[in-house]
Amino acid sequence: MPQLRIALAQVNTTVGDIDGNSALTVEWTRKAAQAGAHLVVFPEMSLTGYPVEDLSLRSTFAEASKKAVEDLAKALDDAGCGEVLTYIGYLDRDEVGARDAAAALYRGKVVARQFKHHLPNYGVFDEHRYFKPGETLDVVRFHGVDVGMVICEDIWQDGGPISALGKAGVDLVVAPNASPYERSKDELRLPLIARRAAEAGAPLVYTNQVGAQDDLVFDGDSLVVGADGTLLARAPQFVEHLLVVDMDLEAGGHCGDGELAGLHVRRSVLGEEPLPRYEASAEPTISEPLSDEAEVWSALVTGLRDYVQKNGFSSVIFGFSGGIDSAIVAALAADAIGGDNVYGVSMPSKYSSEHSQSDAADLARRIGGHFRTESVEDMVRVYVDQLHLTGLAEENIQARTRGMLLMALSNLDGHLVLATGNKTELAVGYSTIYGDAVGGFAPIKDVFKTQVWALARWRNAEAEKRGETPPIPENSISKPPSAELRPDQLDSDSLPDYTLLDNILDDYIEGDRGYADLLAAGFAPETIDRVVRMVDRAEYKRRQYPPGTKITLKAFGRDRRLPITNAWREGQV
Amino acid sequence: MPQLRIALAQVNTTVGDIDGNSALTVEWTRKAAQAGAHLVVFPEMSLTGYPVEDLSLRSTFAEASKKAVEDLAKALDDAGCGEVLTYIGYLDRDEVGARDAAAALYRGKVVARQFKHHLPNYGVFDEHRYFKPGETLDVVRFHGVDVGMVICEDIWQDGGPISALGKAGVDLVVAPNASPYERSKDELRLPLIARRAAEAGAPLVYTNQVGAQDDLVFDGDSLVVGADGTLLARAPQFVEHLLVVDMDLEAGGHCGDGELAGLHVRRSVLGEEPLPRYEASAEPTISEPLSDEAEVWSALVTGLRDYVQKNGFSSVIFGFSGGIDSAIVAALAADAIGGDNVYGVSMPSKYSSEHSQSDAADLARRIGGHFRTESVEDMVRVYVDQLHLTGLAEENIQARTRGMLLMALSNLDGHLVLATGNKTELAVGYSTIYGDAVGGFAPIKDVFKTQVWALARWRNAEAEKRGETPPIPENSISKPPSAELRPDQLDSDSLPDYTLLDNILDDYIEGDRGYADLLAAGFAPETIDRVVRMVDRAEYKRRQYPPGTKITLKAFGRDRRLPITNAWREGQV
Repeated sequence: MPQLRIALAQVNTTVGDIDGNSALTVEWTRKAAQAGAHLVVFPEMSLTGYPVEDLSLRSTFAEASKKAVEDLAKALDDAGCGEVLTYIGYLDRDEVGARDAAAALYRGKVVARQFKHHLPNYGVFDEHRYFKPGETLDVVRFHGVDVGMVICEDIWQDGGPISALGKAGVDLVVAPNASPYERSKDELRLPLIARRAAEAGAPLVYTNQVGAQDDLVFDGDSLVVGADGTLLARAPQFVEHLLVVDMDLEAGGHCGDGELAGLHVRRSVLGEEPLPRYEASAEPTISEPLSDEAEVWSALVTGLRDYVQKNGFSSVIFGFSGGIDSAIVAALAADAIGGDNVYGVSMPSKYSSEHSQSDAADLARRIGGHFRTESVEDMVRVYVDQLHLTGLAEENIQARTRGMLLMALSNLDGHLVLATGNKTELAVGYSTIYGDAVGGFAPIKDVFKTQVWALARWRNAEAEKRGETPPIPENSISKPPSAELRPDQLDSDSLPDYTLLDNILDDYIEGDRGYADLLAAGFAPETIDRVVRMVDRAEYKRRQYPPGTKITLKAFGRDRRLPITNAWREGQV
Repeated sequence: MPQLRIALAQVNTTVGDIDGNSALTVEWTRKAAQAGAHLVVFPEMSLTGYPVEDLSLRSTFAEASKKAVEDLAKALDDAGCGEVLTYIGYLDRDEVGARDAAAALYRGKVVARQFKHHLPNYGVFDEHRYFKPGETLDVVRFHGVDVGMVICEDIWQDGGPISALGKAGVDLVVAPNASPYERSKDELRLPLIARRAAEAGAPLVYTNQVGAQDDLVFDGDSLVVGADGTLLARAPQFVEHLLVVDMDLEAGGHCGDGELAGLHVRRSVLGEEPLPRYEASAEPTISEPLSDEAEVWSALVTGLRDYVQKNGFSSVIFGFSGGIDSAIVAALAADAIGGDNVYGVSMPSKYSSEHSQSDAADLARRIGGHFRTESVEDMVRVYVDQLHLTGLAEENIQARTRGMLLMALSNLDGHLVLATGNKTELAVGYSTIYGDAVGGFAPIKDVFKTQVWALARWRNAEAEKRGETPPIPENSISKPPSAELRPDQLDSDSLPDYTLLDNILDDYIEGDRGYADLLAAGFAPETIDRVVRMVDRAEYKRRQYPPGTKITLKAFGRDRRLPITNAWREGQV
């Protein structure tokens, strides 16, 4: 049985930074070579970052990407890694159109290249817009092992390239991926990959990227499974990692080039001779997946950190209201970029409670952040007096003067402003556009209110386990939520109980369920009417809301595209 | 030769308003019947409105749409229009998925239904996300005439259903459409439709919707061409219209049901006997297409009016700065909803010129709008003094206090706030987020600055031709543009000359051209660098900008999807 030592380079690339990503590829291939690896697999479109969206349509970008592949092959050789068969992802473009491509680099040359076959066009994906599908399967014989490849969605769809590879006969399948994180997606991934390995009749090496790009975050969770579906190695989530595994590979008698299930199989030979037997290294890593809370927390931290850093910021600022939402955002920000880079501002108005300021100050101390108090009373008074504001107009002007105040401090000091709204608020429009909705990024935009509390309790408990100060003041968790925009206001004056509300929202938004289904689920008709109406009417606010990390099946934004002008109301039929 | 009198119902539907759209269909079919028409064609998805976006994925909505088709067939019969063969569009859904569908209704029944074959997935379209393609061609024999149908994109793509219909043999093709307006698109439409009629070997009846939906506007321009491509009738743009045309149709010997080019042809017979010869009515209308300026103006007026009215507003409010942008928005708003529903607010700060207020007051008088002055000096002073603002922070707070002021007045009085920014500003980020960018709708978002001036001159000249007061003060057109956020500030301090700037932007944004192309077009390298950098860095502002009417090939928004986090800079290679 031929041997191969295989490395999975679970790296964090940056969209558009072809030079930086090339350098990263050289650095990690060198690490792989140092670990004695013969073959290394990078994520999907690792040279360009993923997703590049409409950059895929720009010819200069595609040309730069294609040139970078050739340059990288030489650079790897120059760096002494030319003997490592290196699979990278990039943007290709030919007379048919742009391609989501992968290439194998060896001894200074591109020895194989293949385009993605299945182009996802649902959820957050628009790949029929960006790419044309591939029609070839490129198999290279390397140290006597036939290595085939597929790209990301090719694994998720039944039939297609994997089963074609199985019929053509390969000894190993490598799969570069950029598979965005969603809660519980890792539970789907392993059984799926195990099934595909069986279809291919060969072990499968699955490298996923880590890090974040705008509203998407990638958890890594790179895997190697045997031909029988056994999990052989698994990388930790949300960190860059080089996963190395020694494999004994079955080299079969395979058919040659030709058409197979509409795909053209192209074979090339780099080396027929298996490697001389060598001593396998220690048992490969099989990392345990994170718990649900730890996974979500890591996703939110990664999403925030990468947005801040990849956009050239070093600090963040936002309103510390003493409430649970700003408290959890503060704890996330401290975990992401360090408490010393977190600037909290308490902005009391005449309706603010005493505890709003004391809880905010307590929060700042706990996370080691900066804290100042700037009253908005004078600003609010000018508006109220000059324009004779009352009611909603008076409530909103408080939220808006705060938004303006934060933007002014951002202009002065260069901090990125964070919006602290959660998914429940955003769903029902319980937020003030240009007020608390102000910000460049919204870290908990996709976290329902009940989950905000659960995460706060979990994060505090983790701190206690580690003997650290819990970051979130207990009072921020336990007190009844209030926007404090009028005397004695409570969220429960305007909204159903949050547990009930989140349950309906989960059905209506994540499940895309209609009125009859909601009724059947046991919700009261008047509650359904009220909630559905609030959600539908708030679409215009969501359109102008900042991006934030997607953690659910259906995040607001590109995941859920509804018209603003929309006369449809559930319950009509 | 069998005769038929055919009506094209160029109507303005509302997304989601299935009941309202059904009632509209009955009303216009009755008009067609009164005009003696035997057949009437409505636009694509006329029962649901278009585009419904993710509503297509909701089963309750699809079920309501399907049920409405059956109900409508009966309602038409009850209304005495059962003898008119009525082609409508709707959302269907079966075990395969959602369908962009059309149905023919006759004598209270659905006598044919067909799904769209070609699903556009470029530009503003995401139809691979929403729909599954059709596989049938439904041909009905009606008064001895074989009538086939295709839906919208089926016409724009080479091959496919039209040529299959040509091979199968039909005497008439009807085509429901929802084809969004872009400048000069009508110049493409007629030659294309003429070519398709030749491919089908039959006259083609093309009904397009009018009206607007969020950022899309539809110009109608419904057409009838003969089998030889001759234009027989054409509806006026941007108005609801019933276009009626008498046709002598060649009834050929046709092949039967069966597979053709992968499509299943299904034939049914409503009537073999041609109608008794009747006297054709007068020559059909052949409306002249509008001039470029008139067309753009109508598109902007329609886009604004429908956004306001379909979202339940009756009035608009925005800053009257005395500049050209707010002046043209005021003129558009007055044309769209009447000057009496337009509320202008002059919001001077200490840097505002005398003429900014006098020009604004003049504008209000000219359009017959409401006008008030609210100084922002006191609001700005509180911020500047309390936070010690200078420089950009001080400039921005002026724009932002104005935005807050408009939102407060909107909260008090229920006006829709309009953002008055143009495409050039939005491209280079020459606007203040949460300041002048505040609004529910942005009427000139897709109009370059040089075009703003051209439209202003054109609109004034039109008024003069009609003996009316030109709406836009000459001084607003001729004075050098300034944001007036610091002493003696001019746009030309921060931006290249607008003619040069718009030329580069046209190449870089509309043309998606790279650095080398821009150089080859004769732009100076330092200007390219500067402009490209400004455009790329402003992506985050565009994401939070309100929707506005698309008039160009590539509008900001769903037409141009670029990452915010994006390290790519043209010029790297």
